[in-house]
Amino acid sequence: MNQEAYTQLTGYFQKLSNIGHALTFLHWDQLVMMPPGGNAARASSIAELTSLHHEHLTSPTIRDLLLQAKEEDLTEIDRTSLHEMERVYHEAVCLPQDLVKKKSLAGSLCEQGWRTQRENNDWQGFLKNFQEVVMLAREEAQARLAANGSVSSPYDAMLDLYCTGDTTEEIETVFTVLQQELPQLIGRICEQQKAKPHMQGPFPIEQQKKLCRSLMSCLGFDFEAGRIDVSLHPFSTGDMDDQRITTRFRDSEFLEALLATAHETGHAKYEAGLPKNWHGLPIGEARNMCIHESQSLLFEKHLFLAKPFFHFFVTKMHKYLPTTRDMHESTLYAACTHVEPSLIRVEADEATYPLHVILRFEIERDLINGKIEAKDIPELWDDKMQQHFGLDTHGNYKDGCLQDIHWADGSFGYFPSYTMGAVNAAQIFQAFTKETTDWQEAFATGNTADLREWLQNKVWSKASGQSSQDIIKGATGMKTDARSLLNHLKNRYL
Amino acid sequence: MNQEAYTQLTGYFQKLSNIGHALTFLHWDQLVMMPPGGNAARASSIAELTSLHHEHLTSPTIRDLLLQAKEEDLTEIDRTSLHEMERVYHEAVCLPQDLVKKKSLAGSLCEQGWRTQRENNDWQGFLKNFQEVVMLAREEAQARLAANGSVSSPYDAMLDLYCTGDTTEEIETVFTVLQQELPQLIGRICEQQKAKPHMQGPFPIEQQKKLCRSLMSCLGFDFEAGRIDVSLHPFSTGDMDDQRITTRFRDSEFLEALLATAHETGHAKYEAGLPKNWHGLPIGEARNMCIHESQSLLFEKHLFLAKPFFHFFVTKMHKYLPTTRDMHESTLYAACTHVEPSLIRVEADEATYPLHVILRFEIERDLINGKIEAKDIPELWDDKMQQHFGLDTHGNYKDGCLQDIHWADGSFGYFPSYTMGAVNAAQIFQAFTKETTDWQEAFATGNTADLREWLQNKVWSKASGQSSQDIIKGATGMKTDARSLLNHLKNRYL
Repeated sequence: MNQEAYTQLTGYFQKLSNIGHALTFLHWDQLVMMPPGGNAARASSIAELTSLHHEHLTSPTIRDLLLQAKEEDLTEIDRTSLHEMERVYHEAVCLPQDLVKKKSLAGSLCEQGWRTQRENNDWQGFLKNFQEVVMLAREEAQARLAANGSVSSPYDAMLDLYCTGDTTEEIETVFTVLQQELPQLIGRICEQQKAKPHMQGPFPIEQQKKLCRSLMSCLGFDFEAGRIDVSLHPFSTGDMDDQRITTRFRDSEFLEALLATAHETGHAKYEAGLPKNWHGLPIGEARNMCIHESQSLLFEKHLFLAKPFFHFFVTKMHKYLPTTRDMHESTLYAACTHVEPSLIRVEADEATYPLHVILRFEIERDLINGKIEAKDIPELWDDKMQQHFGLDTHGNYKDGCLQDIHWADGSFGYFPSYTMGAVNAAQIFQAFTKETTDWQEAFATGNTADLREWLQNKVWSKASGQSSQDIIKGATGMKTDARSLLNHLKNRYL
Repeated sequence: MNQEAYTQLTGYFQKLSNIGHALTFLHWDQLVMMPPGGNAARASSIAELTSLHHEHLTSPTIRDLLLQAKEEDLTEIDRTSLHEMERVYHEAVCLPQDLVKKKSLAGSLCEQGWRTQRENNDWQGFLKNFQEVVMLAREEAQARLAANGSVSSPYDAMLDLYCTGDTTEEIETVFTVLQQELPQLIGRICEQQKAKPHMQGPFPIEQQKKLCRSLMSCLGFDFEAGRIDVSLHPFSTGDMDDQRITTRFRDSEFLEALLATAHETGHAKYEAGLPKNWHGLPIGEARNMCIHESQSLLFEKHLFLAKPFFHFFVTKMHKYLPTTRDMHESTLYAACTHVEPSLIRVEADEATYPLHVILRFEIERDLINGKIEAKDIPELWDDKMQQHFGLDTHGNYKDGCLQDIHWADGSFGYFPSYTMGAVNAAQIFQAFTKETTDWQEAFATGNTADLREWLQNKVWSKASGQSSQDIIKGATGMKTDARSLLNHLKNRYL
């Protein structure tokens, strides 16, 4: 078989993956280990490797090989692999270098400013930098639209960076149903619900760490192939058999660290389950953020909060944290599942979270497509918060449109993946429970192996070998459907 | 002034330094943080960046710029900087790629085998792999000799990699005196000395960690610009304002961790004291291992074990480790300064250590220069151990010629720097104490700022702007002189 160009391409992408590995762990170190003095040298090194990576990825050699490989006699899976290589290449090459530089500068400036402007509730100060960010993001979206045959609007082109394959239209279909149904559902949940239980600590951090490690073991995390540390915000990263997750602790509360640990372990298990023989190739990467977030939310909201598993794990809480011993299981469960409309997305519960996302989706879609301007955001934000939650954010930018970091550095198109992930998570877990007898008995002993094997077959092993919606259909029999999340919420809360 | 080529070179070397930064921290992570699963991906990434580094360093562009820069109108210091660039370039370019690859393979194979062969006392098994390592090292030495105008024998060319500037002849001058004087001196010390004090623990490791951090603070380590962790063997690495040192702990003993911490802090302070404006250039790097080891040994053997400082620091030991409270200062000091001929270099005290090094120096020198063969090593080792210490290692390869890792991977020429460093350390500390009034009063309160300022001016700020011996002469008024170490030993022990 003639596949010389394709074979050469796999070598090139392995090389890129090796540089990517270095960047991954330099970033991890920066956020988890590095003392402040390391900043300057680390920034130079990361910039150098990023530029080397870009230089190699966008080289004429790769362009020529991609053209040659298209004429070669490839298997179907190699053709899919080639398609993913092309997608990654075009994503990197479609922006003029000049725009990349301007975007990076404007994003850094705006993000730096945001850190104090948010605290000072200074929308006008932020707006000055942000208008430049929006202008460049629109330029970026136009350039990406021109280079990407599978999208049909500027916003769609940005969305494709994170929700790859899930279009604005599909997302709108899901979000429309959620927007119609959720406000009433939330109202009903809040009526039925008791007051949020109060946690009486202290919960010693060393003990919380042991509890988190014990949870990770139940969730199948392999400590010979990964580690958990502490950082300002929980995150997960790593490569192949070296998954690094983080959480954060305070001694007055312990469920937050535990839920974050379950969440990040879900991300890590997905990455660790990607096919080893595709490592380093674009086809071997996680499909998109809608799938990634579905795995983390599945571990956090469905596995950990499945009644039989939670029941089992309460014994661990009692073991490691003596101060929890007089808290009843139902109290602890209620503390993990309290629903309440609030101003801040990152603190929102699973019922109200989607409305936070939909608000942002509508605003950023119209902003990138040029239907609204940056200056219009606060008024739109107020209207939507009033409409969704009946909450007033007028003049409160700090807890309104200034609360997130995403827009400040130009990451438009990321938000929808949180809620697409939440719907996918509910839908996938439901499919698993339908197909699997005895899952509750296994969960009740802390055994999650069946779920993980199921996910390995249905989701993790697919990597980027199928489209996002094909993976969901393969695993659940249907496309991402808002009703999956709605049913889950009704089952849990009503 | 015409210095366009030189300016371009500084840009190239900054780029190399940025790649070097990534390699430094990937190595650190590998030894300190990485779970075993990370091995495969990490090895690929390190190999990729090493090869990218080599490719950039040996590019024809650099060669041409080096030639052009020589014709430019440079200041004296820029000319020195250019000279160091040339040295680094020739060091990298002088070996055929084929030899580099063979050497790396043979070294890995031999080192891997050594790990079990040492345990099994299997000299014959080791010899099979080692003969290939020696053959390739001789090829390497010939190639380096041909490319390096400042050395005159194959071994000298290998030595120049670690002891840069200190020649075989200079080292032989120092070692000859030590070899003549030390055996008798050691005999006298052993006669006068009491039995080695016994440590009665336990010494809780969390408390030992606090004690080490307290020592590092006294030694001027800036925790905003570095950190200490645990690894299998203590080491130090890092970049600019991010120095990473490690130590190791056991709860039955605490002085070992403390001495290792002082040692590695010395390495780190030297690196942190290199001129910021030369960062990334060869002239800005640590001069050689003879100077590097002098700084670590100065911190360990001279600063920490200076009577006034030790007196001060015993209060810290008592504070953090209650089990030390009934140990008298003199007992603790005696435990840190016990002299006894022994088989193992890494466990040797400061009086016997040089003889271990001289034995290895003589063998590796003759081996690389072709005067002896690999198979002759055990007999030579036995003879020299008998001659130096009156100890029998016949048939005991494990505690004889198989004890070190250095030769297994082809690192010939490294050993002498340990003892050149020890002599330099004694000589430098002596010069400091002569020039500084009140140093004992300051040390007695844990204040080491004067010493560090003195070292900053006399040693650290020189980086590679002067030769090794010029730095020593500048700091002490004379070249490295064996009598400096002998006098120190006489003063401390007789």
